[in-house]
Amino acid sequence: MNKLEIFPVKGFPEVTEGADIGSLLLAAARSSRLELRDGDAIVIKQKIVSKAEGRLVLLRRVKPSAKAKKLAGEQGKDPRLVELILREAVRVVRAGHGVIITETRHGLVCANSGVDRSNVSEGYAALLPVDPDASARRIRKGIEAVTGKKVAVIVSDTFGRPWRKGQTDVAIGCSGIDPLFSYRGKVDRYGYELRVTEPAVADELAGAAELATGKLSRIPAAVVRGATFTRREVAIRSIAIEKEKDLFR
Amino acid sequence: MNKLEIFPVKGFPEVTEGADIGSLLLAAARSSRLELRDGDAIVIKQKIVSKAEGRLVLLRRVKPSAKAKKLAGEQGKDPRLVELILREAVRVVRAGHGVIITETRHGLVCANSGVDRSNVSEGYAALLPVDPDASARRIRKGIEAVTGKKVAVIVSDTFGRPWRKGQTDVAIGCSGIDPLFSYRGKVDRYGYELRVTEPAVADELAGAAELATGKLSRIPAAVVRGATFTRREVAIRSIAIEKEKDLFR
Repeated sequence: MNKLEIFPVKGFPEVTEGADIGSLLLAAARSSRLELRDGDAIVIKQKIVSKAEGRLVLLRRVKPSAKAKKLAGEQGKDPRLVELILREAVRVVRAGHGVIITETRHGLVCANSGVDRSNVSEGYAALLPVDPDASARRIRKGIEAVTGKKVAVIVSDTFGRPWRKGQTDVAIGCSGIDPLFSYRGKVDRYGYELRVTEPAVADELAGAAELATGKLSRIPAAVVRGATFTRREVAIRSIAIEKEKDLFR
Repeated sequence: MNKLEIFPVKGFPEVTEGADIGSLLLAAARSSRLELRDGDAIVIKQKIVSKAEGRLVLLRRVKPSAKAKKLAGEQGKDPRLVELILREAVRVVRAGHGVIITETRHGLVCANSGVDRSNVSEGYAALLPVDPDASARRIRKGIEAVTGKKVAVIVSDTFGRPWRKGQTDVAIGCSGIDPLFSYRGKVDRYGYELRVTEPAVADELAGAAELATGKLSRIPAAVVRGATFTRREVAIRSIAIEKEKDLFR
């Protein structure tokens, strides 16, 4: 295993609807004298992807349903926000202590269906991209067409987790990378077979990128160089644990 | 935010009971010409810490209880292993599909109480350190005494997670770092107050280190340089979500 480097991609402009994220990223990288290489993993925060895809909603235009009003009252939240959360969800997994955990249409289990008001204009909320794997694929293809380099693209978001405070950035979409790296059938140096070891490299890359971008620095992307992963199209939605095997529904 | 670098620490010998992990790490770093600096975060895999602390158990000496035998039968596991899992646990959170999720004495919720047979001699199982925060503190103090550099030490292990396949490396003990970086009360550039944003930097560092070490390369540690964190003694056990606020018990 070799040294890894993580470069924050500075110099992004404000992203608006219709923006080509791949082009903006390449321009920002150029201005920081960062040249992409084969095998680089580019981690892009969901918020700018959502902005480029027009996934901002003006809250005062949202009419909350009776169900949203009830849940909002119980959890001390804005009913319009809860309405958006419910529209983005296929089910509410848990609600309590002011937190609403849902399963989204993409099969992601997270707080508030990923709907969030940080780093968007006042009065707006941002929804997750409709298909973050497709977003990642589009961005990857654009970058590869211009640079001729084979890269991975990960769209990341900040998720809490059960049992432990704090949040980590995880992959909500990816392209050019298998989100899991399989050691199945591999044997350790004592002869023991690793039967279940599949590091979630896309999530570890997303978390590593967060260390280089932070939350307030206007750096919506980072390039991770030197990581080992398998180049393959495997959607993040495909690594959701199947309903019948899920111990925490 | 600046560039991050992650250096795998190569050249560790086999770790045995009584070994001084800090000294071994410094010797290995020297042999790779890696000189520690102020602010470095050193991530060390749990397995070598457990070995140094004598936390290996010879499975044929373990007498499974009736409870362990029953659970082992239900989940298709070795009853002696299940006996160790139960001894290390304060409760079983879920069991099903061949998986036993427990809460350990440390307040960690994970598969098999962290008891595991990979990368140990045949016939043995490794238990987690008795107090991984104390292990991290001891190692940090040893390294700081020799080098005069202020570093963070994180003891990491590989945990699965609900809802999503694969595992990520997370912090099970730390010293010289607050495992959470708080943005509470900070305001984004649109004036929106971040009320709940606390990146779990210790976990993101552990996951980032995994990208540089892998599982089979005999590299049990990595040094992460350039990350922003707060130097403060905050135990990993203190970031467990309180029982009464936990939505997934």
